[in-house]
Amino acid sequence: MKVINGVKFATTNSGIKYKNRDDLMLAIFDDNTNVAGVFTKSNIVSPTIDFCRNSLKSKQAKSLIVNSGNANTFNGVEGNEIVLETAKEIAKNFSCEQNNIFISSTGVIGELFDYRLITEKISDLKVNLENNEENFIKSSKAIMTTDLINKIAYEEVKINDEIISIQGFCKGSGMIAPNMATMLAYIFTDAKIDSDLLQEIFSEINEETFNSITVDSDCSTNDTALIFATNKSLNKINKSNESYQIFKSALKNVMLKLAKKIVLDGEGAKKIIEININSAFNKSEAKIAALSIANSPLVKSAVAGCDPNWGRIMMAIGKSQVKINMQKIALKIGEFDIIKNGKKDDNYQENFVHNYMKENNEIKITVDLGNQENNSWTAYGCDLNEEYVSINKDYRS
Amino acid sequence: MKVINGVKFATTNSGIKYKNRDDLMLAIFDDNTNVAGVFTKSNIVSPTIDFCRNSLKSKQAKSLIVNSGNANTFNGVEGNEIVLETAKEIAKNFSCEQNNIFISSTGVIGELFDYRLITEKISDLKVNLENNEENFIKSSKAIMTTDLINKIAYEEVKINDEIISIQGFCKGSGMIAPNMATMLAYIFTDAKIDSDLLQEIFSEINEETFNSITVDSDCSTNDTALIFATNKSLNKINKSNESYQIFKSALKNVMLKLAKKIVLDGEGAKKIIEININSAFNKSEAKIAALSIANSPLVKSAVAGCDPNWGRIMMAIGKSQVKINMQKIALKIGEFDIIKNGKKDDNYQENFVHNYMKENNEIKITVDLGNQENNSWTAYGCDLNEEYVSINKDYRS
Repeated sequence: MKVINGVKFATTNSGIKYKNRDDLMLAIFDDNTNVAGVFTKSNIVSPTIDFCRNSLKSKQAKSLIVNSGNANTFNGVEGNEIVLETAKEIAKNFSCEQNNIFISSTGVIGELFDYRLITEKISDLKVNLENNEENFIKSSKAIMTTDLINKIAYEEVKINDEIISIQGFCKGSGMIAPNMATMLAYIFTDAKIDSDLLQEIFSEINEETFNSITVDSDCSTNDTALIFATNKSLNKINKSNESYQIFKSALKNVMLKLAKKIVLDGEGAKKIIEININSAFNKSEAKIAALSIANSPLVKSAVAGCDPNWGRIMMAIGKSQVKINMQKIALKIGEFDIIKNGKKDDNYQENFVHNYMKENNEIKITVDLGNQENNSWTAYGCDLNEEYVSINKDYRS
Repeated sequence: MKVINGVKFATTNSGIKYKNRDDLMLAIFDDNTNVAGVFTKSNIVSPTIDFCRNSLKSKQAKSLIVNSGNANTFNGVEGNEIVLETAKEIAKNFSCEQNNIFISSTGVIGELFDYRLITEKISDLKVNLENNEENFIKSSKAIMTTDLINKIAYEEVKINDEIISIQGFCKGSGMIAPNMATMLAYIFTDAKIDSDLLQEIFSEINEETFNSITVDSDCSTNDTALIFATNKSLNKINKSNESYQIFKSALKNVMLKLAKKIVLDGEGAKKIIEININSAFNKSEAKIAALSIANSPLVKSAVAGCDPNWGRIMMAIGKSQVKINMQKIALKIGEFDIIKNGKKDDNYQENFVHNYMKENNEIKITVDLGNQENNSWTAYGCDLNEEYVSINKDYRS
């Protein structure tokens, strides 16, 4: 993996929660780094979210700092103070504007900590900053909470004979988060691209990747995804030439890889479910139907048991209230036809599909809603196992 | 329990699925019986739903027939034929109009059966019709699928020294349904009441009872609730006198009792969760927030483990995107203050709440959203146990 020109990483231990591992990461960007981002849609958010939303208006990034072990949520005015003191210290150390700083926190909520645990580490971090693979990987580990593995993805593409790199890491252990499933994702690229176009592409791909995965339909107070483009490349990405599609598809690969790693990280999850909806009235309805299936506890339990319980899939579509044509609706699991033209297929044999579900870790469900309109969406979920419950029952200790 | 004047019940075995129990029930009403009803909001429905919706337009009921063991859903035109042949046979036997007949089916979906299994039993049923408690109870059992117990509720009230009775039965085993959690509920009363007022009251109370319970957020293709008023009483219920409130509150008691019995019937469920939302911007937002908590797998798992994981409750409110005031929001579990004025209460002791959750089977969660507006809603859910998953994993056998 190449390192991205224009970004340095450092990590350290803050002692906020974890004692024997790095839990604080800092990235410093060269001047002229553009940034785009998306945040949780929750109405109850960490003050880090408000801070980042404000910084995003500047469209420029100088620094990203992330701590794990504490989400700094529901800490009242003292929670705001942590964010402001952190920003002040970074601004001082790196002579930058506060609105070019991005801050994230993940971990337990409602537990206050002393902001000096972060601010007094900034000078340590400054000394350790490196533009190398080792520190990038360390950073991907520092943001973990109950994740079982660190999650990294990397792609490079050629645009006019110039290699452009995209790399990213994320955290999100879905079902095994201590209080909830905070998802954090950070992407870095040396692409030269205007910040408005970067935001447009990032928002669009975010819908198709991070916003199309679901572990348990729960969404966190701290969810954040940011992309930083250092503009070090010579060839500018713009909509009028082929560089646009090349860059977009590489970025989607990186983000989809990261998203799938989140889905599969939950200890309980054994299988990814890929749900393809076709012939929807519009894209929004295609997505609603796909997520209704992906979030249905009855569908998820059936996948855990390798039971081709197609009635539950139909139930999940029905309750989503999207437009369907009952005379044309069709369903496949894997390559097996189950429903065709609104009726169970005469050749359907449950046992074949049961075996397919048993032998594969990525189960494909394809539904044609039967409308004349030709809109599709793909969503990703996971099965619901007994382990999910036993892991999430009691986090008090 | 008094029997309702004006309605007779009979049951028999059809052989559609079950061999050794009654699985078909018939109710016949005296002339001048008013009816009101509500149905699944799913877009994929059994033809019985379409048939009942049409009959409801007549506002008068002569007959109700329900089979268990097969939901008659996804059976194409042959499914419609079952409904039409059943209606034709009843109309012939009881000299009534088809649009005064109501038909429900519950059980497996996508499996066709011979309509004669029903039609050839109508004359048997006719002979057995009785206005007695025994046949009422038999009827409550005939509609069961995987329900562990039959579910009955009964109330009587005095209006101008006249006793008015309301009785009902329902089925719905929530988490242990073979294909999905079909809910059927039938209420019978001798009240004298116009059909339009009956529909108004029934729809309103349905929102507060059957539509405020959730087992797993899944909703079925066949959900049906109907109320039949035989008009045998002398004192007419109308909005301008106190009879209205008396009748309404008795009806709510019956429906809430039935609703709670559904929540608790799932084999996996050990605890009912009662969620009270106060100070919501409007009633609709209060309900959305309440159901968001009730449906959250992370909240439900925490209740199973008696873990007062308040962060998950806040997450569920946040993701519902209702209006909140972060400076004023408050949370209680049982009588224990956890959050006050947007911050963890200084006196909060986790262990006390853990013990409360351990010692009680009905866990009360109360959230004040902190808005100036004073709107409330109560919803009912249940915990999520390992048993839910193991029961729902594989229904193939």
